[in-house]
Order: sequence, then C-alpha cells, then structure tokens
Amino acid sequence: MTLMFERAAVIGAGLIGASLARALRANGLAGRIAGFDLDADVRRRARECGAVDEAPDTLDAALKGAALVIVSTPVGAMPAVLAAVAATADDGALVIDVGSVKGAVVEAAATLSPRVSIVPCHPVAGTEQSGPEAGFASLFDKRWAIITPLARADAPYKAAVDKAAALWRAVGSNVEIMDHAHHDLALAITSHLPHLIAFTLVGAADDLESVAEAEIVKYSAGGFRDFTRIAASDPVMWRDVFLNNKAAVLEVLGRFSEELALLQRAIRWGDAETLEQVFRRGRELRRAIVAAGQEKDVPNFGRDAKG
Amino acid sequence: MTLMFERAAVIGAGLIGASLARALRANGLAGRIAGFDLDADVRRRARECGAVDEAPDTLDAALKGAALVIVSTPVGAMPAVLAAVAATADDGALVIDVGSVKGAVVEAAATLSPRVSIVPCHPVAGTEQSGPEAGFASLFDKRWAIITPLARADAPYKAAVDKAAALWRAVGSNVEIMDHAHHDLALAITSHLPHLIAFTLVGAADDLESVAEAEIVKYSAGGFRDFTRIAASDPVMWRDVFLNNKAAVLEVLGRFSEELALLQRAIRWGDAETLEQVFRRGRELRRAIVAAGQEKDVPNFGRDAKG
Repeated sequence: MTLMFERAAVIGAGLIGASLARALRANGLAGRIAGFDLDADVRRRARECGAVDEAPDTLDAALKGAALVIVSTPVGAMPAVLAAVAATADDGALVIDVGSVKGAVVEAAATLSPRVSIVPCHPVAGTEQSGPEAGFASLFDKRWAIITPLARADAPYKAAVDKAAALWRAVGSNVEIMDHAHHDLALAITSHLPHLIAFTLVGAADDLESVAEAEIVKYSAGGFRDFTRIAASDPVMWRDVFLNNKAAVLEVLGRFSEELALLQRAIRWGDAETLEQVFRRGRELRRAIVAAGQEKDVPNFGRDAKG
Repeated sequence: MTLMFERAAVIGAGLIGASLARALRANGLAGRIAGFDLDADVRRRARECGAVDEAPDTLDAALKGAALVIVSTPVGAMPAVLAAVAATADDGALVIDVGSVKGAVVEAAATLSPRVSIVPCHPVAGTEQSGPEAGFASLFDKRWAIITPLARADAPYKAAVDKAAALWRAVGSNVEIMDHAHHDLALAITSHLPHLIAFTLVGAADDLESVAEAEIVKYSAGGFRDFTRIAASDPVMWRDVFLNNKAAVLEVLGRFSEELALLQRAIRWGDAETLEQVFRRGRELRRAIVAAGQEKDVPNFGRDAKG
C-alpha cells in the first residue's frame, strides 16, 4: 500500500487533531506524524499517549518535510497559524484545517501564498471531551466532512481539493463540497445554536437561587442532563466559534427566539393545539436522523443498558 | 417473601405504567397486575407484551380487588381518572400517580374521598419512547422518586405515604418528600424547560427555508441530534405538562431568556470574556451529575462504542 503522505504535521493537538492523526495511521495514510501545540504540556501528552510520533518544540520543526499539514487549533488562532504555515511549510504542501466556522478561515487563507494549497475543511464530528488523550481513530467514521474550497481555479489547487476529499473518505467520512457562507448557516442551526442553547440552559439553572444545585443534579434525568453533554465542550473552542460566526448565529438565534415566543404564548394562553402540533415534529426529525445513520436507534442514548 | 400487594392495577398502560408494572413483578412486590387504558389497542398490546397479566375492558374491572392503583395517564387526564378511582377502588387502596406535575394532581386529589389514600408521586425517569412495549423493569433504578403528600394528617394516610416510599425504594429509587410547589419549580428547570427548548429548536430548524431538512439530518452530529432525543418524547404527555405547570415554566423560561439575551449581546459585541466565562460552567455541572450517578461517564453518550 502506498502512503498518501510520507510525513504529516498536526498543529493543535487536541481532540480533533489527535483523532485525525490516529485515523491517518489506522488507515495507513501517513508515515510519520509530528504534532505541535503552543502548550508544551499538550505536546508532551500527545507524544506520550501515542497520538503523534514526535512533538518538537517549534512549529518549523513540526512542519519540516510534511506533505500534509492539519491545522486543528481553535478557530480564533487559525489566521495566525495559517499565515505561519503558509510561510514555512514545504512547497506544495496540502494544508487542511478542521474549524467549525469556514468564512473566517477562507477569508484569512485567501490572502496567503499559493505556494501551499490551503483547503478549508470541517469534519462534523466530535465529543464533549478535550485534549490529545480524548482522540480516537474512528471519530470520523460515517460522519460528514465539508470542504469549502478557496476561489482558486489552478490545477494544483483542484488536485489538492481532490486529495483532501480522498483523505476524508479514507478515514470513513462522507464528503460534501459547498460554499463557506452556506456552511456557516447550516452549521449555525445544526451545531452552533444547539451549543449556545445548552450553555444558556446550564447558566440559567446555575442562576436560579430557588432551586439548589444539588436538586438540579438529582433530578437531571428528567431531561437536563442531556444538555450538559454539549455544554461540557471546550469553552475556548466554542468562544471562538461564536466570535467568528456572528451573523449566521444571530440569524438562526432570531428564528429560535420567534419559535420560543410562539410556544411561550401558547403556554400562557393554554393553547393545547399549538403545543401538540409543534411537539409532534420532534419525533419525525429524530426518525430521519436515525434512518440516515447519524444516531443510534437505542432509547435514552443507551444509558439504561447494563454495565 | 410476602407480597406488598396481592393485586395491583395500572391505569394508563404507556412507558411509565408498563415499566412500573414490570418493576413490581421483577422485585416480587405485586401478585397479579391488571392494566387499563382508554385505548383498546393499548390494552391488548400491554397484555400481549407481558407488561400486565390481564387487561379488562372497563376501569371498574381493573380496579376490583387492587390494593395498589397506579395512575399513569397524561397529567391532563388525571383529575378525572383519580375521581373515578376514588369512587370505585377498594376501601383503603393505596393510589399513586406518576405525573410530571404535582400541583394540579394535589389540587384534584384534595377534593376526593379519603376512603382511598392518594399519594402523589413523580419518578424522575423515562425515555423518549412511548407505549407499553417500551417499558422495562429497571427504569427506576438509581433514579429519584419525589412524593408530594396531600395535606392529610391522619394515621392511615401517613402509613400510605410510608408504603409508597417503600414501594419506590423497592424498585431501586431514592425517595424525596417535598412540597408540590417546590417540586413543580425544580422540575420546571430540570425537565420541563429542557423539553420546551428541545421542541423549540426542532421547530426552528424545521422552519429555516435556507437550510434543507436533508442537511439538518446530515450535520446533526454537530450537536443538533442530542436535542432530538427529548424532542421525540410523547407529544400529548408534554402538552399536558405545559398546560398544567404554566406558572413555574414561565418563571424559569424568563430566566432562560435573560441568560440568552446576555449571550446574544456578548456575541453581537464580540465579548470573548463573557462567552468563555458562561461556557466554563457546563463542564463543572456535568461532572457533578456524573459523580452523582445520574449520568454515565462515557464520551458522546457512548455513541462511538462499536456495535
């Protein structure tokens, strides 16, 4: 089997970077993988847990000889990291990022040297855990990877986009190519708003003096605990998502607030019909998500299984 | 082993009624269990799937000889069902309900004959599934059962409350006794508001013309799919919860809206510090919920486990 990349570099060795490094290795796509992280402790842990083969102390050392560079930092750091990578990486390197926002990345990448091929990507996958130890090779299996190419029509760039798509398929993902603005709106409703709502609910519960935290914990099986999973996600990563996808998030938040006002009014006025009608939509959408293989068909997220 | 109840009756043979019937049998608490449901098809299915031993065609027949009556209908039906049970059940029967709202049940029960002992209960447990086939005996294990007794000081009633508490403990639950108003507020934040928010998010996504339903399904692993679990819960049950716990739900919804406005403003003005500060609270609360045994300590609800 021919390796797709002799050497790869992962810049930002958290959950996604470490998972992709492991997936490249598990699928025989990359030979040696170097990891870099601004945090020396994360560098050490990434090497010790085996997510990467080496973790040099400088970005330059990590990039040296890498035909593939994965930028997996929080989105806010990406413009600076991409600029450094574009200046330092080997000629012709394929540079992909994995950020949850694409407009900001496309904008930053458009100004950089075409000496490397930057292909903005977003694998729609993750867990609420953080750090290199949380990474695992099958994270991208059966999930979707979205590519939002730069406005470059040259043949090397087109080949780079094809290679990025092949990489995602090789780690088990389905690939979709779309415009960055549409990505940012679609993910605002399917990912960013759900996280914002979960963070909001946890904050509101924390502020309610009349119900003690101990009670919230005890009775969380009534529904609250579901929200705490995504509300436990990395705070810095999510801060950067909201700072960098402001317009789309505010747009879908407006829709959410309208819908909430409708239900609030229905509760206040005892409008049983409206409540039941809105509530019926949930079941249908969940069935579609299960049918599409994006969710397991087990009640209560399988929590009631023994063990 | 002495049976706690020779005969029991389950009125409303859905997920909770069927689960409690199975739990009573699995723990040797009840001999013969009759089930009744207004829906003849549900009666037949409850008997066929083995949740109950018999499913007569009338409420009276189901109640005959039952020392324990479980009222597990939607909350809106409970006043009428409790009145019928209080009129027909055997003298001295213990009558418990399992409704998610307690003020409305306490109010309805207070006017009924003290010939039976009505003990309002709420087991904080469930799944997003409905119907008798969805029931299972271990549903209440390690969960909390809340009892909100009526304002009756007589000895038989106190004994009935003790017996209800013993029943819940025998099926694995922890028991808490509290005032119905406090219950309705505590559950508004831990259960009712989370469900309302989940239903709202699904509704808002459904209404967004610019993002197709197929895309919402594809990219739901970004967070959205978590919300569809509780949004797939029984629409009639939840309609009745909101119609019967209006004041407490509107109160906590007000808190939620304030918190959401704060975050919306932070996004609009690029206030990184506020966002990060609120986002950090999620992790702590989830850790507390896991530590209390109310959630499994597996990333991504265990979805990434093989199989």
